[in-house]
Amino acid sequence: MMLPQTMRALELRAYDGRPESLALIQKPVPRPGPGEVLVQIAASPINPSDVASMRGLYSVRKPLPVVPGLEASGVIVAAGSGLFPRLLVGKRVACYAGAGDGAWAEYMATPAMHCMPLPKTVTLDQGSMAIVNPLTAWCLLEIARRGKHITVVHTAAASALGKMVARLAQRRRVHVIHIVRRPAQAEILRTLGADADMVLDSSAPDFEERLVDVCRRRRATLAFDAVAGDMTGRLLDAMPPHSNVIVYGGLSQNECRVDARRLIFEGKRVEGFWLAHPAPLSRIDFFRAIAAVRSRLHDEYKTDVRRRVPLEAVTPGLEDYLAHMSEGKVLLVPSVAS
Amino acid sequence: MMLPQTMRALELRAYDGRPESLALIQKPVPRPGPGEVLVQIAASPINPSDVASMRGLYSVRKPLPVVPGLEASGVIVAAGSGLFPRLLVGKRVACYAGAGDGAWAEYMATPAMHCMPLPKTVTLDQGSMAIVNPLTAWCLLEIARRGKHITVVHTAAASALGKMVARLAQRRRVHVIHIVRRPAQAEILRTLGADADMVLDSSAPDFEERLVDVCRRRRATLAFDAVAGDMTGRLLDAMPPHSNVIVYGGLSQNECRVDARRLIFEGKRVEGFWLAHPAPLSRIDFFRAIAAVRSRLHDEYKTDVRRRVPLEAVTPGLEDYLAHMSEGKVLLVPSVAS
Repeated sequence: MMLPQTMRALELRAYDGRPESLALIQKPVPRPGPGEVLVQIAASPINPSDVASMRGLYSVRKPLPVVPGLEASGVIVAAGSGLFPRLLVGKRVACYAGAGDGAWAEYMATPAMHCMPLPKTVTLDQGSMAIVNPLTAWCLLEIARRGKHITVVHTAAASALGKMVARLAQRRRVHVIHIVRRPAQAEILRTLGADADMVLDSSAPDFEERLVDVCRRRRATLAFDAVAGDMTGRLLDAMPPHSNVIVYGGLSQNECRVDARRLIFEGKRVEGFWLAHPAPLSRIDFFRAIAAVRSRLHDEYKTDVRRRVPLEAVTPGLEDYLAHMSEGKVLLVPSVAS
Repeated sequence: MMLPQTMRALELRAYDGRPESLALIQKPVPRPGPGEVLVQIAASPINPSDVASMRGLYSVRKPLPVVPGLEASGVIVAAGSGLFPRLLVGKRVACYAGAGDGAWAEYMATPAMHCMPLPKTVTLDQGSMAIVNPLTAWCLLEIARRGKHITVVHTAAASALGKMVARLAQRRRVHVIHIVRRPAQAEILRTLGADADMVLDSSAPDFEERLVDVCRRRRATLAFDAVAGDMTGRLLDAMPPHSNVIVYGGLSQNECRVDARRLIFEGKRVEGFWLAHPAPLSRIDFFRAIAAVRSRLHDEYKTDVRRRVPLEAVTPGLEDYLAHMSEGKVLLVPSVAS
């Protein structure tokens, strides 16, 4: 296959979260190194982790300038050395960025091990959201199952991940207390089948009281927290002794604040979860997660798409996404003309 | 033995930490219930946990009015029903308060199980400090040993407990990075034999930088934190990935503040320790701790006494203690005339 010399790509120039710091440029199509493949990008979602990345708040800061975009779908059009990369040529895949440039471009070079071939029943749009949220949802529920937790609390529960966790939990018979930040979001969870008393709006004046009550009645001993800030401490306050909060996001952009007495006298604990090192799960668990997700991408792990935008429209796309985070994903689609 | 009808006791009337809320009164000598003994108090230290208690910041608040004082020494002068309580009559013991009135009085009734007979070589003054700090020090070092930590960080390291941990760690070959809050306290640790680079003053301008450096060089992966507030987060920031902070005190009286990214991307964790439920240690470990402490109370688990005061002088005693916390314990001694 003949590949062009250059491609269109979005390039981040500063970790300040300003729209001006993201520019559409022409740059050389990358060459896949040993063990890598070249993916012609079909679609790439804007995820909370992308937003955090561009603000310089995600894991390590890659050297600038850099192409953002943590996950995508596409077709593998070239391979570096190695049997596995060569076997993938021509395949439709979901893929995850490596250490260098990401997916908000026409092409991305990434390790072959970061690619998951997509079943024929899955569209490239759905496939572009097959990694971050589905594997995280699987891992969170697996952690709940192993800890024999009857009920878990989930914050930012109207997010794409929140809805996925709600669906999966129903089938796995784990009860979920959903915490949302606005009344309209509570409605979303209820239409997904959540009991009215299991959906709490953190902006309500009686939030703390209701949280303590429902945590006690339902024996909620584990919370997954995407918000951080004072939410982490409120969760720890509300749950019974020996409960844990697992922080996996920092949507509030604030430090976790925790009453030391909850740790000392009540044996509670605060830890973290990151898909890149999903302790306490092992590598074998991770392969189980991938198999589970692949087989149910068309239903359980499906994500709503709100809008498809070309690379040129990344700024309005980001604004739209940030204003309506719980109303479906915004996908960047390089092949769409502006 | 003839016991008096009434005794002198200190009584707490409000959880506000004000000196006026602590009064010297006459009240009936308590009668030991089933399984309990009556201890004629010889001495009782002022511990940080007593100060926290009187401010209403310790575990549960006992109904008021209540006699404070968590630990003491004395002679058992009467017993309630049960073989074990009766066997203890006449014995010199270290003892710990039960659910009701504490030790800042001439007599205290407490469960016989809360008493540890003292070896003849141990004075009643030393015996009055045989439980809280020695067992905590043993437990902290046991947690370090089990987790195979080469180096641990300890905050408020010039405290009575800090000095004890420093002594024990030397024998057990656990390296300790001592964090103190003033230059004079750093000097105390160095005279105890700590290497100069292992003693850090958190008030110094280069504290954070030095902490990161020494944690990396010495591979410090566990911290014991008596301070809480922003210290918890600074410890978590400085230590390498997959480190833990165990909070066991809240001297700063502030909420623990922790960067969510340390939890998420670096697999770090914040938990607590309390002697009353010393997870992850078992009941058998606890008996090992008691045996170890009893056999070395005269040297390894010895605590400096700064001053002995009568019950009448509790207010100046408390003030003196709070002003010079790292310079030896203040003991309340009911038999001393004012």
